[in-house]
Parts: sequence; structure tokens; C-alpha cells
Amino acid sequence: MPKQPSLDDFRVPYVGNGKSNGKKAGKFSLTDFDTASKPFSMGSKDADRARLSELGNRLDELQERLHAQRRQRVLLVLQGMDTSGKDGTVRAVFHEVDPLGLRIVPFKAPTPIETAHDFLWRVHAKAPAAGELTVFNRSHYEDVLVPRVLGQIDAAETERRYGHIRQFEELLADAGATIIKCFLHISKDEQKSRLQARIDDPTKHWKFDISDIEARKLWEPYQEAYRDALAATSTEYAPWYVIPADSKSHRNLMVAELLLRVLEDMKLEYPPAKEALKGIKVE
Amino acid sequence: MPKQPSLDDFRVPYVGNGKSNGKKAGKFSLTDFDTASKPFSMGSKDADRARLSELGNRLDELQERLHAQRRQRVLLVLQGMDTSGKDGTVRAVFHEVDPLGLRIVPFKAPTPIETAHDFLWRVHAKAPAAGELTVFNRSHYEDVLVPRVLGQIDAAETERRYGHIRQFEELLADAGATIIKCFLHISKDEQKSRLQARIDDPTKHWKFDISDIEARKLWEPYQEAYRDALAATSTEYAPWYVIPADSKSHRNLMVAELLLRVLEDMKLEYPPAKEALKGIKVE
Repeated sequence: MPKQPSLDDFRVPYVGNGKSNGKKAGKFSLTDFDTASKPFSMGSKDADRARLSELGNRLDELQERLHAQRRQRVLLVLQGMDTSGKDGTVRAVFHEVDPLGLRIVPFKAPTPIETAHDFLWRVHAKAPAAGELTVFNRSHYEDVLVPRVLGQIDAAETERRYGHIRQFEELLADAGATIIKCFLHISKDEQKSRLQARIDDPTKHWKFDISDIEARKLWEPYQEAYRDALAATSTEYAPWYVIPADSKSHRNLMVAELLLRVLEDMKLEYPPAKEALKGIKVE
Repeated sequence: MPKQPSLDDFRVPYVGNGKSNGKKAGKFSLTDFDTASKPFSMGSKDADRARLSELGNRLDELQERLHAQRRQRVLLVLQGMDTSGKDGTVRAVFHEVDPLGLRIVPFKAPTPIETAHDFLWRVHAKAPAAGELTVFNRSHYEDVLVPRVLGQIDAAETERRYGHIRQFEELLADAGATIIKCFLHISKDEQKSRLQARIDDPTKHWKFDISDIEARKLWEPYQEAYRDALAATSTEYAPWYVIPADSKSHRNLMVAELLLRVLEDMKLEYPPAKEALKGIKVE
């Protein structure tokens, strides 16, 4: 009988404490994860769709409690190479979730005003407020991955930024945020076919910039930069998970499973009934 | 055969030009609209649901084009008495719409910092950017309705605020925004049963504040304030529509029909294909 998959098998070992889920943090490698695997698939696309809808409805219920409480907050960070499916994940995982308590924050290349500040300035401004479920579609990790690969910052600055990120995420966690970070992991071949599909469909050109081709040439340096960033910033208060993402339906399902586990662990309840309302008859 | 309903029959006559859809602006009255009527209903709840899903999918397609273009923008303003269904409308109408191009902005009672500015300051900051479909769940209209009913501003200041609102909305329209404003119109009896339902269900208490009961005592002054505000600020560039909203399924359907018409009138197309991408093969 195949081993029941565990979400924890896909967690990046926590930095600092040497060992986590049996692996040494320093030894963590992205190539240990098969991008094409579908450990959380239900066996067919239809079954996956049904399961996702079930998870979505449950997410919606728990999100309403989070929203009703206005105390805790959740931050989901989505990262991945171009075409890894960040947009598609947002759309699929949150299809059943009430838009009122959800905030999607896309991060693009920083503007001149943003660049004039420290790299966490624009990110801090978008942190989830009490009662919010916030999704970062790209994030502060772009500001360590891209400049590192392009050689704009050296190794020492890269390390300093990892440190700032850990401290920033600890601040959010101390203020009641539950943070979960997903790396959508696709293969170089899968990216090739997805980029080609966008080029071949003129209605998809708006999603495409010619610089995406340039970035693809840096595939290996980006994989290495991701590996290092994940290894350096996976912590108990803000863990990274590697999501096998060549299969879109598997990717959606696994992110939904993870998020649902997080929300369930929060033991969210509606706030207590208001005594003042007891027995009131509206005239 | 019953007359086919026209959305324009529910448009508040434009201010200034005396006549619009056969009615004099000054003569406009909310009591001319039957809150319980269901002119856009398909005849049954199931048929309404099917139609709403159809409209939702179409809204999603057009919203993607709006998002792809990053040129035009849409602002939907939702107003109505407590329990009129602003939250429910957002949830139902946008169920099929990709959260990536949608922004829901709730306005609460202004904070001290907001109050320290002019009443449009906090609103302007939330105006839709190019490519966005933004929904104001409550809006700048609260800042003329509430203080007027509570006697915090006099008639002259109320008129001045109407003028500022018209000019502000004209500014947004000149910058490429299409504005549509919906007043969710319920009866006093319908509000009574909805408030009572919230009181009787402790998991709904978080939606309820004891001050809602106080506001209900001011039902008639609020209806009058709404009438005046709608009459004074319905313009060609930012028209008001009265949505019969005692029936939730009718309310959702009518708002979706209106919004779809607006998006269809915008003749949204995907931006032109990028010549530079033609014939490129990804390596």
C-alpha cells in the first residue's frame, strides 16, 4: 500500500535548528521534489475538481469566522518561476471564498518611489489586517531573488536580506499573523510548453513580456537562488512548502489542503454572542 | 404580454437637465419603486440562479479583457440601508469573476485620521486603477447621508457636498472610469425580518451593532436623505439605479445585468498581439 502523503514531507526544513522532518536544512534540494508528482491527487481530474470544491467550501466557512473575529490574520505567499501558476492558483483555490474577507496583493517590479525605500517598505504596507486572509502574488522574495541572479547585490547583502525577511515575518507572526509560503515548483520543460502556448495565443500576449524569454535563460541560477532563499527563510512561524506544480489540478488541491490545515489549526470560532442582543425584538 | 423590463426604467433621472426617461428629476421618488418587485427575475429561484451563473461567466470574460488592457476601469458603488444586501450582492455577483482583477473596498465609519481630511480624501485613495474593476461597499455617500440625518451638517453643507461628489465623479470619469451606482432598495418590513434573523442567530451577531436598532428608528429621514442624494448626484457619467431588493435573487440578478451591460458597452477587446512575439520558439 502506498504511503499516505503528508504535507510535512513537502515542508522546507527550518533554518537554524539543523534538523527538521528528518532532513538537514543545509542539505535541502529542490531536485528532491518531483515537479510532475501528484501526491495529493484523488486519481482523476474530475475527482480532483470535486475535492477542490469541497475544500473551497470549507475554506469559505473558516474564512468567515476569521473575518467575524477580526483578531487573527493569515498571509499566504505564492512564489514560483514564470508560468508556474500563481494566478491560476489564486483563481482556483479561492473560487468558493467570499471576496469580502480576501485580499489579493500582486507585487510587480518596484516603482521609483518604492525603490527609494527599503525593500520591505511596500510589503509592510500590504500586510494582512486583523480578520483578513491576504494572498501575496509574488512578494518580498522577488527583491532578494531577482537582484541576486542579476548580480545587483552580493552574497553578503543577500544574507542580510534573508535576515531582514526572517525578522519581518516574525514581527507579523507576533502580531497574530499565521504565515504560509508556497513555492510552485515546475520543470523547465513544463515552462517551455506553457510559454509557447502563451506566444501561440494572441489573447494571452498581455500576460507575456519578451523579458520572460531572457529570464528563462537564467533558469538554473534562479533555481539555485530559490533553493537558498527557501532554505534560509523557512521558519516555524513562516514555513515554506514545495508544491509539485506541473499538474495544475494537483497544485490547486495541494495549496488548498495546506491552507485548510492552517485554518483548522487556528481553531477559529465565531466571536461570542452579544449579550445586549439577547431577546431583542425589532420594531 | 407583459412589457419587457428595461434597466433604464430604474435609472434615477439625471440632475440638471430636467427630464430623463420621461420623469422630471425633481419629481423622482423612491416610493415609485416597489421593493418587492422582481422585474428581472426569470420566474423561479432555480432559473434565477442559472441566469446569474451565465451572467457571472460573461462578466468574468469581460473583466479579463479589462484587466488585460490596463486602460479603462470600472467603479461599482453599492449603497443601501442596513441589511439591504451589499455584502451578499458582492458575493453572488462576483462568484465567477477572477479575484485578480477585482477589488472590493469596504468603507466603515471614518477613522480620526480620515476625519482630519476632507470627506473625499480616503475615497480618492481607493479609486480604481487602470484595468481594475472596483466595488465600493458603502462609499462617499455615507459622508453626506449620515451627517445630514444626524444633523451634523446643514442644508447648505449638504448641497456643497453633492457638488463636490459630482465634480469628483466627473474627474474619475474623465480619467477613463465607468461609474455605476446602485441603491439596494428594501422595505422597512423586510429590514425588520432581516435584523431579527441576525439577532436570533448568535453566529450572525458579529454583523450586528446595537446602533443598527437606533438607525432603524431614523428609517424615514434616511429614505428622504437617500432620495435627495440620488436625485442630486445621478449624472450621465455616474448614474444611480434603484434596485428592488426585497428578493435577494432578484437583486443579484439585476445588479449583474446592469454591470454586464456597462461592460458590454465598453466594447472591451484584448490588447493587440505583440508583433515581437510572432513566430518565437521557446528553447
